[in-house]
Amino acid sequence: MLQTICWTGEAARLLDQTRLPTETVYVDITDDRQMWDAIRRLVIRGAPAIGVAAAFGVYLGMRTFDGNSSALLRRVDEVCDYLATSRPTAVNLFWALNRMKRLAHACTDDQKAMKQRLLDEAIAMLEEDNRVCRAIGEHGARLLRELVPHMEPIDLLTHCNAGGLATVQYGTALAPIYMGAEQGLKFHVYADETRPLLQGSRITAYELQQNGIPVTVICDGMAATVMRQGKVKAVIVGTDRVAANGDVANKIGTLGVAILARHFGIPFLVAAPTSSIDLSLASGEQIPIEQRSPSEISNGLGRQTAPDAVDIYNPAFDVTPNDLVTAIITEHGVARPPYGETLARICRRSD
Amino acid sequence: MLQTICWTGEAARLLDQTRLPTETVYVDITDDRQMWDAIRRLVIRGAPAIGVAAAFGVYLGMRTFDGNSSALLRRVDEVCDYLATSRPTAVNLFWALNRMKRLAHACTDDQKAMKQRLLDEAIAMLEEDNRVCRAIGEHGARLLRELVPHMEPIDLLTHCNAGGLATVQYGTALAPIYMGAEQGLKFHVYADETRPLLQGSRITAYELQQNGIPVTVICDGMAATVMRQGKVKAVIVGTDRVAANGDVANKIGTLGVAILARHFGIPFLVAAPTSSIDLSLASGEQIPIEQRSPSEISNGLGRQTAPDAVDIYNPAFDVTPNDLVTAIITEHGVARPPYGETLARICRRSD
Repeated sequence: MLQTICWTGEAARLLDQTRLPTETVYVDITDDRQMWDAIRRLVIRGAPAIGVAAAFGVYLGMRTFDGNSSALLRRVDEVCDYLATSRPTAVNLFWALNRMKRLAHACTDDQKAMKQRLLDEAIAMLEEDNRVCRAIGEHGARLLRELVPHMEPIDLLTHCNAGGLATVQYGTALAPIYMGAEQGLKFHVYADETRPLLQGSRITAYELQQNGIPVTVICDGMAATVMRQGKVKAVIVGTDRVAANGDVANKIGTLGVAILARHFGIPFLVAAPTSSIDLSLASGEQIPIEQRSPSEISNGLGRQTAPDAVDIYNPAFDVTPNDLVTAIITEHGVARPPYGETLARICRRSD
Repeated sequence: MLQTICWTGEAARLLDQTRLPTETVYVDITDDRQMWDAIRRLVIRGAPAIGVAAAFGVYLGMRTFDGNSSALLRRVDEVCDYLATSRPTAVNLFWALNRMKRLAHACTDDQKAMKQRLLDEAIAMLEEDNRVCRAIGEHGARLLRELVPHMEPIDLLTHCNAGGLATVQYGTALAPIYMGAEQGLKFHVYADETRPLLQGSRITAYELQQNGIPVTVICDGMAATVMRQGKVKAVIVGTDRVAANGDVANKIGTLGVAILARHFGIPFLVAAPTSSIDLSLASGEQIPIEQRSPSEISNGLGRQTAPDAVDIYNPAFDVTPNDLVTAIITEHGVARPPYGETLARICRRSD
């Protein structure tokens, strides 16, 4: 299986996602400046993957530093503050950097031992991501076997990329496929190309192909047709944030897919690590939706495809209301409606 | 208003659609070889527009020819057969060429008069297209005023391009907007960009902008969001073929839009000249769906956006079942369910 990020013993090895979908190239990152640049240039992307990459970046920024303990802590803060500027809106980045900072400031060991603890922590974060994703995968694979019994391959449709390439290795929405495949289940996946940034055709299709899962790319407007043809047994997507009532924010286009799934009686599943469940938000209406540049739509593909100065609307996410969501798959189990109760219970389990 | 094709007195003047959406350039076509090339290279596209262009092509191919009456008829056949090879699957092309052939063969006039009759026929076909489109526009504008009373601007959503640039001037789906605007109504249109070939952002957005109708381009996956926000009062699309029961074939993505419209309780309207109603087909299941090259999706715009050798599904059209269609607007009036009866009545009126 492809690995988004791993530790070689000497370097953090990243799959260079700027070369996808046409080339598979790995880069070895050996200092914090290289890691800053890799995060900035989207060599690595996806919230969980960025968090782990930043943690390794902190260790790499300390590795050759020499100084007394207060100089060491100043340097840790400096490296963290510096890495935080690589992608200023990525929440997992700050979360990971704060975790590394806290560890360093709480550490009473000598210089060498402290550096080792930073490395151990980065590796622990990588392993945690794998554990969470694998657990989502186990629960999701079991759910799919229930929902689609006696039928293989299990035909799924996904939107955007909530796959291994957004995490360390297994992904969230795609984890049930990888875990199911390990158990011998057969799958086929329709990947919406996911305009405007085409994460589906560029990334999801690439990773499924590389990992040996049969995949078919379609344009977003073709989802209704493949559903109507009976070719989709379940939809599975990731999420950026789930509100307490089970409303789900995800890449723009997800809401439409959910409505189509409802129309055709197809289960609509959301894979969500508990870290993306935000019980502080009563409903999806409180989730802020990022508006992005019109040029992603008009000039996103190397050629101008809309007239000069035309009005363009480019929300990056949409919110799918809870009544369209069949189940939410977390690392602690599967939540079903009413989500107000089931998500709260799962999050308590997580604490 | 933009004109797709007009007769200058000396030449057929075409808006060069290969230069859209960034440049507005007209080309004057003065012989049949130039017209063949213009149709082939998509300088002019859209079934009704191609038919009219081909008719002018026949006249232009005869204009300087000199010969006796049997040589003249041989030459007409030659020119028609030649122009028929420009876009071998365009039904309106053959229809128009056959009409010109029949006219010539039935003509007993001298050489000069016969050439004049060919020109007159091409001009008549242009005017007929305008009449049909304007009539659809009148009926459609009245329907929109009924469906969306007391509210301006009338917010519409359209998919693909069934606009003036696919016909001589007024379009089918966009004709109600142009006719309504002539009557003083105000509109705002969301144009789905319409992957893979982006007719919405490249052509619909361009023509609405040029014709002074406020337009906002969105990706296909954003339609659900603007509908959910209450920003769409009706959907209006064109069609390639309507079956006797009211099932509608149109550009891929239309079915999804129709399902979303139903979900949000928004009227879904289809503009269809009676020439596109095919009473010989009982239902949409009998409409053949063209499968197009995967490269339109993976390499459509100058950059590869899907991995090598990945499976891609690229149906050019989908079929929207009649129960999702609120009304079908023809040049002879508006058909409502049950379409089996209303379409037959309208087609009888057309004969």
